Amino acid sequence: MPLLVMKFGGTSVANLDRIRRAAKRVGVEVAKGYDVIVIVSAMSGKTNELVGWVGETSPLYDAREYDAVVSSGENVTAGLMALTLQEMDVPARSWQGWQVPLKTNSAHSQARIEEIGTENINQKFGEGMKVAVVAGFQGISPEGRITTLGRGGSDTTAVAFAAAFGAERCDIYTDVDGVYTTDPRICEKARKLDKIAFEEMLELASLGAKVLQTRSVELAMRYKVKLRVLSSFEEQSDEAGTLVCDEEEIMESNVVNGVAYSRDEAKLTCLSVADRPGIAATIFGCLSDAGVNVDMIVQNISEDGRTDMTFSCPTDQVQRAELALNAYKEKGELNFAELVADTGVAKISVVGIGMRSQSGVAAKMFKVLSDEGINIKVITTSEIKISVLVDRKYMELAVQALHDAFELDKAS
Amino acid sequence: MPLLVMKFGGTSVANLDRIRRAAKRVGVEVAKGYDVIVIVSAMSGKTNELVGWVGETSPLYDAREYDAVVSSGENVTAGLMALTLQEMDVPARSWQGWQVPLKTNSAHSQARIEEIGTENINQKFGEGMKVAVVAGFQGISPEGRITTLGRGGSDTTAVAFAAAFGAERCDIYTDVDGVYTTDPRICEKARKLDKIAFEEMLELASLGAKVLQTRSVELAMRYKVKLRVLSSFEEQSDEAGTLVCDEEEIMESNVVNGVAYSRDEAKLTCLSVADRPGIAATIFGCLSDAGVNVDMIVQNISEDGRTDMTFSCPTDQVQRAELALNAYKEKGELNFAELVADTGVAKISVVGIGMRSQSGVAAKMFKVLSDEGINIKVITTSEIKISVLVDRKYMELAVQALHDAFELDKAS
Repeated sequence: MPLLVMKFGGTSVANLDRIRRAAKRVGVEVAKGYDVIVIVSAMSGKTNELVGWVGETSPLYDAREYDAVVSSGENVTAGLMALTLQEMDVPARSWQGWQVPLKTNSAHSQARIEEIGTENINQKFGEGMKVAVVAGFQGISPEGRITTLGRGGSDTTAVAFAAAFGAERCDIYTDVDGVYTTDPRICEKARKLDKIAFEEMLELASLGAKVLQTRSVELAMRYKVKLRVLSSFEEQSDEAGTLVCDEEEIMESNVVNGVAYSRDEAKLTCLSVADRPGIAATIFGCLSDAGVNVDMIVQNISEDGRTDMTFSCPTDQVQRAELALNAYKEKGELNFAELVADTGVAKISVVGIGMRSQSGVAAKMFKVLSDEGINIKVITTSEIKISVLVDRKYMELAVQALHDAFELDKAS
Repeated sequence: MPLLVMKFGGTSVANLDRIRRAAKRVGVEVAKGYDVIVIVSAMSGKTNELVGWVGETSPLYDAREYDAVVSSGENVTAGLMALTLQEMDVPARSWQGWQVPLKTNSAHSQARIEEIGTENINQKFGEGMKVAVVAGFQGISPEGRITTLGRGGSDTTAVAFAAAFGAERCDIYTDVDGVYTTDPRICEKARKLDKIAFEEMLELASLGAKVLQTRSVELAMRYKVKLRVLSSFEEQSDEAGTLVCDEEEIMESNVVNGVAYSRDEAKLTCLSVADRPGIAATIFGCLSDAGVNVDMIVQNISEDGRTDMTFSCPTDQVQRAELALNAYKEKGELNFAELVADTGVAKISVVGIGMRSQSGVAAKMFKVLSDEGINIKVITTSEIKISVLVDRKYMELAVQALHDAFELDKAS
């Protein structure tokens, strides 16, 4: 029997009506002849309520008890979804993580999946069950305690089940109807993509397009799980949403497939750093120890044995970065003339696997920005992405201009 | 290490403040040198919310899914209680039913406890854990699915743990401060009992004094578990509340220890029933099949081969009883002249193990009621209880008069 994994997020199971709507979608796939594994999140708001109670009870909580508490929200929706399907005469039952079992390591509250037992669920499929409803986001540790997978863990659960059971596809139902060329809120010409390659999705996810959790995309890429993102609030055809898949399945692609932005970036520069071997390791080791998420890094050429080191991080981590670097300077472990922070920048990126085979994308990008009078402060590039920092006030203009210039409103 | 079981009901863990207050009580017992097993209910209102969702989703629900859903409330409080204790530097952890394991049969939503594994928890006590917090009301079936024990299941869980672990005592914390000679709301002279025998408590519980669930008292009696009922809202001494124990531990007891009442009773009489062997079996078999909870049964003497058969049941089951009996009559399986219902009666009972050795209690009871001008409609007696039905308008007067006459306001 061909098998599908369908995942419904918190807003898609927020109340009994929405659970019923989601169950109807599942019923449609069952009617087509699929066995289905449904992964559910907690009703939206429930997990936050539980997390709040834990934090209020114990600021430095025991993560094992945190997991025991916050995992309960998914148990509720799993049972309700199974009951709803049964009411529709679809043979279904619920499974909690430990019942599957979904085995994880012992890293409570951010556990990694180690193994998914397929025997129990496959046995029930063999006995005529059509839908296994699984509580997402949770597993069981080697010590037999409940673990949770961290934020976005239900997406990851869904992809892991699709991999373990060899599902034909993993459909992620959410509150948006797919992946867009850019954020429709700041560019009205934004176009929904029919397909996008894993690598592109990864870059877009890590750039703040919060449709899919980065970890779930990585997992899908590794196990070649076809992922589809679609809305649970619209009638769906087989071609709805956006398919995230191997680039080989995308016949022709635009050179650039997306323009992403990140609003709250800051640029910091250590001026006149002694340019000796290991200096970068010292600076970024210091920042890493301080918990600063460094993103872009640029080192200018050296002059008289001294150089300028520039990096970017979220604006709310600037103070932490300054404290850490100045402390190193005082201890004599680091030598720089001055630390300059610019907290008024935004990051704009163009992403596309077509860049690998086509040159001139960077030049085009820089010309577009220059034509709009936008000054570029920092540039970094990867194989399929070019990112720049610009003044925040130009962010929306830059996104719109690039979207136009690369003709992202037109399908390839 | 001596061991205590402490059980906190829904109102005692209704929010984080109350959980904190309950945890402090646990801390007091730990400081005295006890290892403690804490049994928690769900926050008050939570189980009803979950039950409501299940009922709305599926009127004829799959009880296995019902159990998976409604058991989640206790998981939340168990984790939060463990965290609260940890914050107080009391080594604690939570256990869900399947982790203990608390094994039950497969009668979902009203499962019976079959076995409690003591190994896991005792191992942790051996490693220095002082408190095991166990989610009440839930267990695991032979098929590995979550079961619940039905209403009042947390009391039963607590007693079963006390029996399995050989606890010195099982303290039931609730929103009343003990067991009273009668309901203080209708008799201001009602006195809290320091001790009461299991048998008396059973009669009182089944008569509607809702302090303890009947099943938990039965279990405590069978395994000779000392039960103490006390308030979680008052500062407690070692002698607080009411101890429910073996009658041998009660040195001297009043002849009568309690006056119970049940407001919504109805009296039904089948007039002129053919008095042949098996007639009672036919009538009460019919009522049982219809789901009528028959309480008192009285058969008058026979005259000319016909008799009157009188019984009582809750008023809201009268219609069901009438329909069932009349249907039997129409089918010719039963023959009676008329079915007369009196829905305006109440049941008054006096309970006391002292009755076994002392005569004249019944005579005294009837005289007291007669002196007040209260007509007795039906009488039944057991070894330690005498019950009568009277007009409902006399209910409070009857309770007060009997409480006075048997001097229940005075300690023995």
